[in-house]
Amino acid sequence: MRMTHSSLTDHIDAPESTPRLEKWLLPLIFRIVGPAPVRLVLGNGKGFSPPGVAPRFTMWIRDLRTLAELLIDTEIAFGDAFVEGRIRVTGDLADFLEVVYASMGDAHRGPGWCSRALSRWIGFWQANTLEGSRHNIHSHYDLGNDFYRLWLDSQLVYTCAYFPSVSATLEEAQTAKLDYVCRKLRLQPGETVIEAGCGWGALALHMARNYGVHVKAFNISREQIRYARQRADEEDLNDKVGFIEDDYRNVSGKFDAFVSVGMLEHVGAENYPALGSVIHRTIGDRGRGLLHFIGRTQQSQFSPWIRKRIFPGAYVPALREAMQVLEPFGYFVHDVEDLRPHYARTLEHWLDRFDKSASQVLSTYGAEFERAWRLYLAGSIAGFRTGTLQLFQIHFAGSKYAPLPWTRADLYTESSQARESEAAEWIPATS
Amino acid sequence: MRMTHSSLTDHIDAPESTPRLEKWLLPLIFRIVGPAPVRLVLGNGKGFSPPGVAPRFTMWIRDLRTLAELLIDTEIAFGDAFVEGRIRVTGDLADFLEVVYASMGDAHRGPGWCSRALSRWIGFWQANTLEGSRHNIHSHYDLGNDFYRLWLDSQLVYTCAYFPSVSATLEEAQTAKLDYVCRKLRLQPGETVIEAGCGWGALALHMARNYGVHVKAFNISREQIRYARQRADEEDLNDKVGFIEDDYRNVSGKFDAFVSVGMLEHVGAENYPALGSVIHRTIGDRGRGLLHFIGRTQQSQFSPWIRKRIFPGAYVPALREAMQVLEPFGYFVHDVEDLRPHYARTLEHWLDRFDKSASQVLSTYGAEFERAWRLYLAGSIAGFRTGTLQLFQIHFAGSKYAPLPWTRADLYTESSQARESEAAEWIPATS
Repeated sequence: MRMTHSSLTDHIDAPESTPRLEKWLLPLIFRIVGPAPVRLVLGNGKGFSPPGVAPRFTMWIRDLRTLAELLIDTEIAFGDAFVEGRIRVTGDLADFLEVVYASMGDAHRGPGWCSRALSRWIGFWQANTLEGSRHNIHSHYDLGNDFYRLWLDSQLVYTCAYFPSVSATLEEAQTAKLDYVCRKLRLQPGETVIEAGCGWGALALHMARNYGVHVKAFNISREQIRYARQRADEEDLNDKVGFIEDDYRNVSGKFDAFVSVGMLEHVGAENYPALGSVIHRTIGDRGRGLLHFIGRTQQSQFSPWIRKRIFPGAYVPALREAMQVLEPFGYFVHDVEDLRPHYARTLEHWLDRFDKSASQVLSTYGAEFERAWRLYLAGSIAGFRTGTLQLFQIHFAGSKYAPLPWTRADLYTESSQARESEAAEWIPATS
Repeated sequence: MRMTHSSLTDHIDAPESTPRLEKWLLPLIFRIVGPAPVRLVLGNGKGFSPPGVAPRFTMWIRDLRTLAELLIDTEIAFGDAFVEGRIRVTGDLADFLEVVYASMGDAHRGPGWCSRALSRWIGFWQANTLEGSRHNIHSHYDLGNDFYRLWLDSQLVYTCAYFPSVSATLEEAQTAKLDYVCRKLRLQPGETVIEAGCGWGALALHMARNYGVHVKAFNISREQIRYARQRADEEDLNDKVGFIEDDYRNVSGKFDAFVSVGMLEHVGAENYPALGSVIHRTIGDRGRGLLHFIGRTQQSQFSPWIRKRIFPGAYVPALREAMQVLEPFGYFVHDVEDLRPHYARTLEHWLDRFDKSASQVLSTYGAEFERAWRLYLAGSIAGFRTGTLQLFQIHFAGSKYAPLPWTRADLYTESSQARESEAAEWIPATS
């Protein structure tokens, strides 16, 4: 027997919740998420878990209204109720979300109708126009550097790290990532690089300091640019790095290489041709570039809750969609690498540090903020573990870019690794 | 001044070609191909080359009719006239085609209207239905193993090799390629592999012999399957490898890995979902696979002359199009590598061997056949050198495939390389 939304709403409007109703509604959750090893408890009621499945987690749902919302629009309702304390989960949050995502994937359930409608509506008022992008980016990245300093590495790198081995520390893995990007680009001293979306400037500084290149780095987050400039001052790298507070669409000049790490997620699919055009007018057919971004296996909407609460305007493309940046301009795709497990590991480090700073976050930003960010970090871990999210690095070049090595072996030879561990030993002036 | 097609035809119909007409028509070629360093000579006339460009090659055009055809539909006309001896080129043919392709790329000229119409028409009668594919494949691959033995390596590998270094021999590079594919797939002893489009069986035999896996290999070329079975007999590998003369669409059974090297070109874009469906029903969400195929940077028609004369039914996709095989089934793309320079080098080896066997080819197959194949090989070299063609290896996996290593470094470590050179020393029983 399958309930329709209207028959469900009729029952919610009934004045009292009886144990009979509870017994009837709770199993419907498992119709949406599949038979996950979770025990559901409504209010002070008895628990329910799918028959034949040993529960590994307990999810407490405060009231019938929260349960009804979950049935109508699972993701948004779960996120909001978790943040407001109307849903609680026992056990490791990332592990819980991982088993639920995996179970949902097996059940092949799409988002509810309500979620799809909301998603379109959010898409409209978060449009990435020049003004819209500035607002979207400000709302996330200008929360205050002190907040990010609590749980990021000492260089404030807020993108997927690269772990040469699982046991590498977060500091080592972030430095290794910066270096891996430089090595994929085969940067040579004296070359010029344009960076679109430079965060707190770690990559731009790494390129200038360790590879002797000249970098012009764009970002529309005021807080981040201010911090990056300060670091360039402290390291006396102002002659090599310019940090510009402006939109990637306003990039001008000619460069040898284009790099963008963690910006494509904020560009929006409708602006991919514009991004391609920016790339082409800066590096032409003689340059090469690297795009590092969160992607997915299939075209679909990005988490509406994440867009509503955490990343307004974000969109995560399938690889096929991302090609729309490069294909119109005839760029060669030389190398695509999926670093999915590396992002899960990076996020585990971040969540671990975040949890250790929980009391500070709580006292400064309040309980709802703390829960929202914990859910976002844990949910991202689950996404990268189960594969609803991927991390792509695309290395591309124009038709007239010549000096590509014969194989990729140089990226993994000892000399590169030596340089990498050397770089990893560098201690930033601000730490 | 730009001529229309009708005004051009009027002049061709004129009974005599005057030097004045020649002087007027020859420069039009350079409107199509751009100012390439080529001297054009019509009949017994004087040569013409673009002003200010020192010619490196001479292209002789027998008559006005050939010249007119070139102006109307450059690629088909050039190919046919070259084959029939109505056009001749002095100097290295691959180098000549390379400068012409590069010049055409700069001039951003698309194919002529006639070429586009012909292309659609060829596409119709070469459709890759089950019957159509059999006919298309038969016309190329069943030319006789003796023909391919003249210029391929001793294992008869008719796909892009992998040169660990530029100086590797063709034999070494083909064995290295077979091994590179196995290492990308991380094959383990006892696993099962399905191969779609197995050629003369070299990869299937390599996997079974060197990696201890069980392989079921499909091909619709009778000659190739017969040869592959004979090799399995000689190597006593019949318990590990089964060669099946059938279409990839009829593949059945469950396997750990799917591999297809050089078949996607013959599948046709309209059949990509069917191929994806074959992959999904054989390896499901727990398996992984590798697609190795000729691609291009932008969606466009494949050379109409190659399709008319050499590879009926062939289509070469942009990376974005190839995703249509994998995306509908939610496969993760772990790794995409472009081996373009490796295919140029492979083809240089093939053309060199082909040239050395020219007298045998001439006496067995005639002059037109010899010229057609020489043009095809030289044109492919030029395509991979200039980048109108690429060679993609896509490594993908289902959502439940687990044992991926943390980084790609294992593909390039010494132990792998040692195994590679070991494998390269193996001498096939048939050589």
